Amino acid sequence: MKELKLGTLYYEISRHNPPALTIEPGETVSVETEDAFSGQIRKEGDRRDAAKMPYGNPQSGPIAVEGAGPGDTLEVHIERIDARLGQAATRTGGTPLIGEYIGLDVPHGTRICPINDGKIWWSPSVGIPYTPMIGTIGCAPAMGAPTTGPAGDHGGNIDIKEVTHGNTIYLPVYVPGALLHLGDVHAAQGDGELCTTALEMAATVTIKIDLLKGKTIPRPRIRSPEEMMAVATGTPMERSIARAYADLILWMEQDYGISRWDGYNLCTQVGTLSVGYFAIGTVAAQIRTEYVEAAAA
Amino acid sequence: MKELKLGTLYYEISRHNPPALTIEPGETVSVETEDAFSGQIRKEGDRRDAAKMPYGNPQSGPIAVEGAGPGDTLEVHIERIDARLGQAATRTGGTPLIGEYIGLDVPHGTRICPINDGKIWWSPSVGIPYTPMIGTIGCAPAMGAPTTGPAGDHGGNIDIKEVTHGNTIYLPVYVPGALLHLGDVHAAQGDGELCTTALEMAATVTIKIDLLKGKTIPRPRIRSPEEMMAVATGTPMERSIARAYADLILWMEQDYGISRWDGYNLCTQVGTLSVGYFAIGTVAAQIRTEYVEAAAA
Amino acid sequence: MKELKLGTLYYEISRHNPPALTIEPGETVSVETEDAFSGQIRKEGDRRDAAKMPYGNPQSGPIAVEGAGPGDTLEVHIERIDARLGQAATRTGGTPLIGEYIGLDVPHGTRICPINDGKIWWSPSVGIPYTPMIGTIGCAPAMGAPTTGPAGDHGGNIDIKEVTHGNTIYLPVYVPGALLHLGDVHAAQGDGELCTTALEMAATVTIKIDLLKGKTIPRPRIRSPEEMMAVATGTPMERSIARAYADLILWMEQDYGISRWDGYNLCTQVGTLSVGYFAIGTVAAQIRTEYVEAAAA
Amino acid sequence: MKELKLGTLYYEISRHNPPALTIEPGETVSVETEDAFSGQIRKEGDRRDAAKMPYGNPQSGPIAVEGAGPGDTLEVHIERIDARLGQAATRTGGTPLIGEYIGLDVPHGTRICPINDGKIWWSPSVGIPYTPMIGTIGCAPAMGAPTTGPAGDHGGNIDIKEVTHGNTIYLPVYVPGALLHLGDVHAAQGDGELCTTALEMAATVTIKIDLLKGKTIPRPRIRSPEEMMAVATGTPMERSIARAYADLILWMEQDYGISRWDGYNLCTQVGTLSVGYFAIGTVAAQIRTEYVEAAAA
Repeated sequence: MKELKLGTLYYEISRHNPPALTIEPGETVSVETEDAFSGQIRKEGDRRDAAKMPYGNPQSGPIAVEGAGPGDTLEVHIERIDARLGQAATRTGGTPLIGEYIGLDVPHGTRICPINDGKIWWSPSVGIPYTPMIGTIGCAPAMGAPTTGPAGDHGGNIDIKEVTHGNTIYLPVYVPGALLHLGDVHAAQGDGELCTTALEMAATVTIKIDLLKGKTIPRPRIRSPEEMMAVATGTPMERSIARAYADLILWMEQDYGISRWDGYNLCTQVGTLSVGYFAIGTVAAQIRTEYVEAAAA
Repeated sequence: MKELKLGTLYYEISRHNPPALTIEPGETVSVETEDAFSGQIRKEGDRRDAAKMPYGNPQSGPIAVEGAGPGDTLEVHIERIDARLGQAATRTGGTPLIGEYIGLDVPHGTRICPINDGKIWWSPSVGIPYTPMIGTIGCAPAMGAPTTGPAGDHGGNIDIKEVTHGNTIYLPVYVPGALLHLGDVHAAQGDGELCTTALEMAATVTIKIDLLKGKTIPRPRIRSPEEMMAVATGTPMERSIARAYADLILWMEQDYGISRWDGYNLCTQVGTLSVGYFAIGTVAAQIRTEYVEAAAA
Repeated sequence: MKELKLGTLYYEISRHNPPALTIEPGETVSVETEDAFSGQIRKEGDRRDAAKMPYGNPQSGPIAVEGAGPGDTLEVHIERIDARLGQAATRTGGTPLIGEYIGLDVPHGTRICPINDGKIWWSPSVGIPYTPMIGTIGCAPAMGAPTTGPAGDHGGNIDIKEVTHGNTIYLPVYVPGALLHLGDVHAAQGDGELCTTALEMAATVTIKIDLLKGKTIPRPRIRSPEEMMAVATGTPMERSIARAYADLILWMEQDYGISRWDGYNLCTQVGTLSVGYFAIGTVAAQIRTEYVEAAAA
Repeated sequence: MKELKLGTLYYEISRHNPPALTIEPGETVSVETEDAFSGQIRKEGDRRDAAKMPYGNPQSGPIAVEGAGPGDTLEVHIERIDARLGQAATRTGGTPLIGEYIGLDVPHGTRICPINDGKIWWSPSVGIPYTPMIGTIGCAPAMGAPTTGPAGDHGGNIDIKEVTHGNTIYLPVYVPGALLHLGDVHAAQGDGELCTTALEMAATVTIKIDLLKGKTIPRPRIRSPEEMMAVATGTPMERSIARAYADLILWMEQDYGISRWDGYNLCTQVGTLSVGYFAIGTVAAQIRTEYVEAAAA
């Protein structure tokens, strides 16, 4: 297993970032990542200081994959996500869209949440199951260099809680070597990531990276042992939901031979949705693979 | 237990509709409902005929509740939802928002899905667990008479799958007697109700109706044995998500004493979303009551 | 010319409202209307009192048109709009969508604005040209009774400034007699009606009502001496813009024989937009008739 | 006057692009620009070939301005916009959002439109007044390199028709030298740029560039001889309208001393909107400066 220790952090997913590590397809890598706050909030009383670091979601990498090129797909198996510091941190960041209803005067408190016994202690009385996920991940686009704030067809700051250990994320490749970036791990996160900051933590992520040569996908996909998922982003969210379900339906048509109209109806009955940061409209449309296989039979 | 047999069906939730039944608070009622197609699709080959019935989601009732008046809340315990005809039906209705991605030429097939062994048979090989829900429910507004197409603060066509047996829905009362309407039961439905028609069925719904005198709520709420949920609707969906979470947060503040800023952060970490018909942006923001109680401790 | 003096005011556009006046097609009627505040703000210091009147935009009428029925269109020529009281009033009502950016603590001042010399005096130094318009107008739907808050396919609270003297508005008829409601006149209004209250005034509106028997339109249309306009409403606004332009394009195709793809391109180059209340997404897509006639030549 | 002949074209607004020209503040520059199609459509029958050039809206520049740095503002006076080839071209590009209503099968015709006698000849019978504008303009962001497809706080593909000769656009500066990019000139364009391609032309743009040292603005602003305008972008459009009007109101407060609540009401009565490409929600909120000056008096 290769290791990528914490090094230069990037705030863009850019083809201009030089590879920090180059691997062969099929290799497993252990990647150290910094938290979304660039490590500014480590203990009670720490504050996010935008003057020192105006950007969020620093990325480790990029990892170059030998032989990867435009039109391919990376298959990233997430084997483990470990807390590097035994804790997560959160703060209440702002009130986009919701401030109109609950007020604008957010107290800028932070919370340091120890992680033990399989729980993240949001307070002494509130323990949340440790369900870690990678918030930001993607390969560098061929044109344009998105910051790590938004999500897009390349992935980026998708904040989908199913990007977790035991699952596999598929990412479009746009440039030679793919240039995989990742970071912004959450110890846990709810649907919508309401206040913009989840339980952010410095982590070590263990991933096995395979290359699907010649396989082209339009946007990120995820597989859990039980589900297939297609990710789309953008506001209004009802439109990204349509886009995500359409991707899922066309995937079912292409790979399983289920007519799109059958798939369209089946998703109506058994599809589910997972919601990333709500204000940017990221969603994953999901279906249990057993239904897809049964419908294909 | 009182019974309300299938009678006049309504396509508006209107104060002009005369009560079909009057009850005392605390009574249990068994209500027969027609399916969203007004029963036009009962066997293979049947077609939805908009010329004969241009409207959908017919309502049974209204049920008048003695003593209910403006500013009160109905607490409707859903005890049972039974299929009246042993089957559900669906069709693929149209392609709002998604047609751009999958095409516009929907074949107008219908599916008759027998219900047995706890499953709805979407096809001979695809059995979907029977998880019935009330699609449309609400009390008549004081001004304006919404059709049964949209959802609103009064409820209406909310299509939230947690409006199911074992759960309780809370509905604002606007007029004397409350005038509860309900219908449009689904044998099962996925998040987003993608193609606009779920597994629609004629049903018998058994509900116990309590009156919370003097308790005012802004929009529907739901409680399951494990969760609290606030329902909001409207596009863009990211805005109704903000509205629903805000309602949930203010509910936690008002009834449990959790400051809104703590509630705001806690929902970020453990809140979940259930999505009704996506194109009209209906959602339920949810939190496990155990977290609320622990945070209040 | 018939006269309809101020009488019962309605806050729904409803088939349940009895005609206040019945006319033959082709007749001219002078209609007195109340302002959006139900006349609560007449002098400095008056306040909008929602406890006394929770609804806005009271409607005069309905006017029944002999022979009108479902599938017809009313052609309403707006001949004059006169201020009944020599003044308009406004207040700053709330901050939907914009509060996040400018704050939530609106001072609830009102302004009484005298109208003279062709200007509305918003302040002693700011005179705004008198450009009156009807804010709310529409025929009663066949099913559902919308309040006078929203806009819809029937018209309603569209707040499009081109509904003005010298122009003609076309409205779908849904029920026998059409049952035309109107009210909520503005002495002037900008694009978007930002703070929800324009320069509201009690007015006398002179309209000539023709009946286009058998002519069916999907939503309101307007003609000025120089332009054709199609009105649509709903959020997100980019979607109602698509809907309004599509209506305009299909109108050009149907009535002028211009292929929809030519119309689509032509509207790209010379179409314009007028925006009603922005938070509900009402727009009119417009094109100068000279371009349509030239393209049809 | 300096000249910048057509040279390397850029499809990102990026700090990585080396200056093509460096000027002192106050200098006038004549800039040659290519059309949005990268010149692929010059004569009847030409087709846009995405295989050869997948990106649109090529940019000339960047122009470096001596002394400009983060937090400053460029003041770009647009003196002239001349057609370089005596013609414009358009095609019907796609049907985002509107395809659902008019169909998806766009014929891929193109139109070559000669420009003479002050008109662009869309067809032999349809002459459209020559009202040229710069579609894409902006300074390089400090982090992230947007392609020339979207618009943003930096400007970019804003497609606002008031970016025209005789007017001045103000742009935020983020990096030393500002690095001004521009291109994508339109001979004319309607509100919404419905089918995504206006009357695109190769142009020579004459601009005088001043530097407002220490003046910071959040997003682009425009001044015509008669109006002040604030530009914002993003979907849903009702939200970008709120953002644009808020910017305008805060500008009036800051530079003219008009309280935001007065400005908020005044914009309600006399504000107007200009709409860029509708599907990405770009708008300019506008007010006549005479009202602002009168209100400030």
